Formats: sequence, C-alpha cells, structure tokens
Amino acid sequence: MKPPGSVLGIIGGGQLGRMIAIAASRLGYKTHIYDPEKYCPASQVSNYFTCSSYTKKKDLLKFVRSCDVITYEFENIPIEILKELSAITPISPSVEVLSVSQDRYKEKEFINSIGIRLAKYYLISSLEDLEIALNKIGSFGLLKTRRLGYDGKGQFKVSKKNFLKIWKDLREKECVLEEWIDFKCEVSAIVVRNSKKNIQVYDISENKHKNGILRETMVPSSLNKKKLSLVKKTAIKIAEKIDLIGLLAVEMFITKEGEVLVNEIAPRPHNTGHWTIEGCNISQFEKLVRVTMGLPLGSIKRNYDVKMINIIGEEFYKWKKYLSKSNYFLHLYGKERVKDNRKMGHVSVIYPKK
Amino acid sequence: MKPPGSVLGIIGGGQLGRMIAIAASRLGYKTHIYDPEKYCPASQVSNYFTCSSYTKKKDLLKFVRSCDVITYEFENIPIEILKELSAITPISPSVEVLSVSQDRYKEKEFINSIGIRLAKYYLISSLEDLEIALNKIGSFGLLKTRRLGYDGKGQFKVSKKNFLKIWKDLREKECVLEEWIDFKCEVSAIVVRNSKKNIQVYDISENKHKNGILRETMVPSSLNKKKLSLVKKTAIKIAEKIDLIGLLAVEMFITKEGEVLVNEIAPRPHNTGHWTIEGCNISQFEKLVRVTMGLPLGSIKRNYDVKMINIIGEEFYKWKKYLSKSNYFLHLYGKERVKDNRKMGHVSVIYPKK
Repeated sequence: MKPPGSVLGIIGGGQLGRMIAIAASRLGYKTHIYDPEKYCPASQVSNYFTCSSYTKKKDLLKFVRSCDVITYEFENIPIEILKELSAITPISPSVEVLSVSQDRYKEKEFINSIGIRLAKYYLISSLEDLEIALNKIGSFGLLKTRRLGYDGKGQFKVSKKNFLKIWKDLREKECVLEEWIDFKCEVSAIVVRNSKKNIQVYDISENKHKNGILRETMVPSSLNKKKLSLVKKTAIKIAEKIDLIGLLAVEMFITKEGEVLVNEIAPRPHNTGHWTIEGCNISQFEKLVRVTMGLPLGSIKRNYDVKMINIIGEEFYKWKKYLSKSNYFLHLYGKERVKDNRKMGHVSVIYPKK
Repeated sequence: MKPPGSVLGIIGGGQLGRMIAIAASRLGYKTHIYDPEKYCPASQVSNYFTCSSYTKKKDLLKFVRSCDVITYEFENIPIEILKELSAITPISPSVEVLSVSQDRYKEKEFINSIGIRLAKYYLISSLEDLEIALNKIGSFGLLKTRRLGYDGKGQFKVSKKNFLKIWKDLREKECVLEEWIDFKCEVSAIVVRNSKKNIQVYDISENKHKNGILRETMVPSSLNKKKLSLVKKTAIKIAEKIDLIGLLAVEMFITKEGEVLVNEIAPRPHNTGHWTIEGCNISQFEKLVRVTMGLPLGSIKRNYDVKMINIIGEEFYKWKKYLSKSNYFLHLYGKERVKDNRKMGHVSVIYPKK
C-alpha cells in the first residue's frame, strides 16, 4: 500500500484525469498530470503539471521519476516509450494491456482468441482489401482506423457506393472493417482487478450514442438476468485473460437475435462509468486509485438508479437548468473553449432503486 | 449568476478551502487560493495559488483583482484590509459579518442584543477585571482571548486558584470570561442564506469535543422536535439579523436544564458540517459556492444518518482501517506534517436513515 502523500502520475489531463485526480486527493494522494494542453481540465485540480507532448521522451522520463505510480486516461502514447517509462515507475493498467487496446485489430484478435464473440472484422491495408472485405460482409460495414479513434472520429459507414471516396479521403490507411451490427442495445461493463487477482464488476449500464458520441448512460440496463450474467462473465474473462491490474471498460452490443458481441475495450475510467460517482459509494475513479495504490478494492454496490447525460458542445450554455432539481448532479470539466462535439460536462440524475 | 469558468478566490488554504475548491471545480469554476503556507491543503486542488501573508496588502490586492468573487476559511484577516479588498471584488460572507465573528466580545454583544441567550460573559482587559468577574460567576469559568482562538487554542479553564498564573502566561490580554456551562450536549446548525434572502438550515448535528477539539459529529442529534425547532430558529434569527449572505455555523449548548445557549458562530464551512458531503446531495461546501456565485441554493435534504470522526495528529497513521468498510468515507487533507492536535482528515460513516 502506498501511503497518503504518494504521487499518482496521470498521463492525459482531460475530464477523466480530472476526476481521477479529485478521487485521489480525497484519499490524501498527490497527483501529477502530463498533458500537452496548457489549460487542460485535470491540471486545474492537481498538485503538479507537466505540459509537454506525449512523444517528448525527456519530459516523460522526468515526469515518471517524480511519481510513485502511473496511470493514464490518454491511450495513444507510443508503446516503446511506455515500456521504458514502466521500467522506472510502475504503470497500471500495464503496457501490455494498453498495447492491445491501442490497436483495434490486435484488440479484436485478442478477444477472438479467448473465445469471445465479436462482429466479423477484416484487416484493411489497401483499397483492394476493402473491396474484398465489403463483398464478404454484404452491403455495408463500419471502417475504423486501427489507431487513434475516439468519439466517432476515425469511423466511417462504408458501402459499395461510397468506399472509393472514403478510402481516398482517409489519411490513416491502416484500418479494420467491421460487419454492420444492427444491435438492439449497447451496454458497458466496468471491471476492476487488483494485483491479488480480486475482481469486481460494476452494475451493467446501457448506452445511447448519437453520431458515434455517447449521449446517455442508464443503469440498470434493460437486460434480463441471464443476459446480465453473460455480459459480466464476458468482461471478467477479458480482464483475467489480459491480466488486468486496474480498471477496464468493455462495450458490448446485444444483437436483435440476443447475441452478446464485444465492441471495444478501454483500460481506463470510461464515460459510461461516470454514473458511479453518485450511484455508488466508490466511483470508478476512486476504484482505479485504490488499485494503483494497492488499497483494498472496497464495495462496488450500487445505491441508486442513475441516468447520466453528457453535455456536449453548445449544450454547455444550458448549464443552469441542472441546478435546481435536487436529484441532478452537474459536473463541468473546466474546458477553455466550447467546440462542436466536445464533451463539456455531464449530469447524473439519481432515482431510488426500483 | 456567475458563469462556469469564473474564479472563486478563497482566503485560507486549509482543509476547508480544499473542500470548497473541490466543490467549485465540479461546477466548472476556477479557484484561487491565498495562504501563507507553501504546501497548504487547498493549493493542491486549485487553479491558482498566491503564497503570501494575510497582512501583505499588495499581494492581497493583486489576488482579489484576479478573482470574480471572494470567500474565506481563515477568519483573522485584518478588517481594515478586507474593507479595501471588498471594494474591488465582492466578499461573501460580508466583511461586516466577519468583523463580528472575529471578536468574541463583539460577537457575544451582538447575539445578546438580538435577544438570543448565551452564557454569562465579561470583557476582561486586566487582572482586576478577571478577579472581579470570577467573583461574580462563582468557582470557575472559561477565559478566551477575544481574537485568534480555534480548536481550543486561546482557551483556559480558570478558577480562583489558578487565574494569577494563567493571566501571567497569557500573551493576549484582551479576553472574555465565560460562565462555565455544564452542558448536556453541544449541537451545531449550519445555516445558508443568499442575496434573495432565501434561507436554509441543514439538519442539526450533535458534537463531541475533547480538549477543545471536535472529535465526532452525529446527525441526527439526540434533541427532541421542540428543541430542534428552537435550535433552528436561533440559527435563522442570527443569520437574518447579521444579514448573512453565505454560510454560517452556529454552535450551541443544551444545558442540563434544557436551555439553548449560543456558544459561538463562524461565517464559513465548519468541521461540524463535513457530514453533509456524504449525507446530503449538496454539501456545505457546494452550498457556499452556490451562494457566492448566485446559483439556486438547491436541496438541503439529508439522505443518511451520519457519524463524522475527525482524524487528529497521529491517528493519521491508522488511515488504512477506514478503507475496507463500505459505509466509511475517508478524507485526508494532504497536510505535509503530522502534528499533535492537527486535523489530518476525517471519516464519514453513513447509515440508512432511521
């Protein structure tokens, strides 16, 4: 167990880093944020801040030397650099876990290899690959860059009609084509596992996206008991097989036929887990801090039904409307500028458990 | 209403400032801490920090110019300086409120003048004053310095036997002698009032002190309905008569005869209100932020029974024991050094409401 006063380094200073930092501070830990943006959300609530690029090795080395443990909310740090850093200061989740989730193809290969179902997928490195794959999966599919996509960025619905143009406009030519899933609903499991191999899963949430961006998360989900159990088991299996130490979000589709297909994984706190701040005694952010610092995991029980609503872009200007209702909890992230599709904050609405 | 991104200046960077800053950040506000201690708790979770003395006017002026509103957790800033500052940036609670609570004698005179009962008190400026007053109140009393006392500092139990020595050792010769109250219990009311004169009181808590330092706060208290109503009314009357805009803690004694006597008031978040973080949807810290920023007050409802336990001095080293129980919430303040009688953190233990 790392004693209070120890320094948690967080790579990435967005809203996830901000909420990790706040959770860490409540337990008496110090935080050090690493982010290239001068006015990033997390640096505003942390002890130390290194403002530098994710590829500047000298600054990253100095940063990890000043920390007792490292975690991250930004997933696209070059793996070779991270390996060097982790030799100096422990990083949780591990570099191996991150190297899988950084690369959509590697991630799908891993999930497939442990016998978990996902949508059909094809590695695409050329126009020819894309054409062949499109012919195999039928009328249309989802083309995603192997790396660096988030919030619907780097994702394109492709068909035999538009694939030529989309491919031409693509900067990143290493992609994965996914079969188009006409799903009934999308759910998330947030799973946590510590170095003693104790494992926990938060209650499963159900998510609504629009244009690739999460709009709402509801917990409990509409799934029945049997399906819930399958979803939890899937998340646990992934966490165990990948030897997770930390927190991992697993997004899954429930198809109209009732199948559970893994969509993607992320080894960090997740937007679909923000409901845990008000919904549980221990949030996903505190849970991660507990694992990184070697503290007992504590309870994972849910106390409320929760609907989490993201505040995106210009919706920010309507912040006042969330202040008067006693079961609404407003979270704003302190971002310098409002931008289309930018996550500016969220609101959690709590209800007594049904 | 001040929009998110506005800067809340907080004079004093202790644990109260820290918890105000965290509450402000959740609503998207920035914070600027002013404190003479380089490693103070609040500066660790705030946007800006001015490390300077409370009497350095130049730095204070620069500080208030950089903020949109000012509040304080440290109460002993010279009033003349504060008046100048408040002409530049609004300060809540007002300088007038603070000038009353800064001075024990003025405070008692004010409370007495509005028809609220308190223990008998005498202004003491000389040994002669002390001797005369002691003769009036009987065997012993409580001698308190007019200014600068907290956590039992600047307080002495005096009797006809020891008063000569105590007076000799006293640095501060402006004091108040209070009648010794053999109380049944001590309770707190945290009252909040905004510029529209809307007023709210949190549920009354009951407090246990040891050597002048708060050890535990319990809510609900053991008072019956009638007494609770009297306690709440007393707090509301003080808040209204002093024209509070902000948050005010009122400590009261319930005597063995059932009388309610005001002990002291503090126009800031209070240790006996820490239970509101887990006990209510809106904590005393967020409530203060809401008033200073002109936001709706929101709900003041209590959701849980709570026992708040202070972690004092070397008790800090037992921090681990609070981590495994699901209804225990540990708060550590990030203080650089453990010291006897120093408040290092607190734990809130929540129970379903009886």
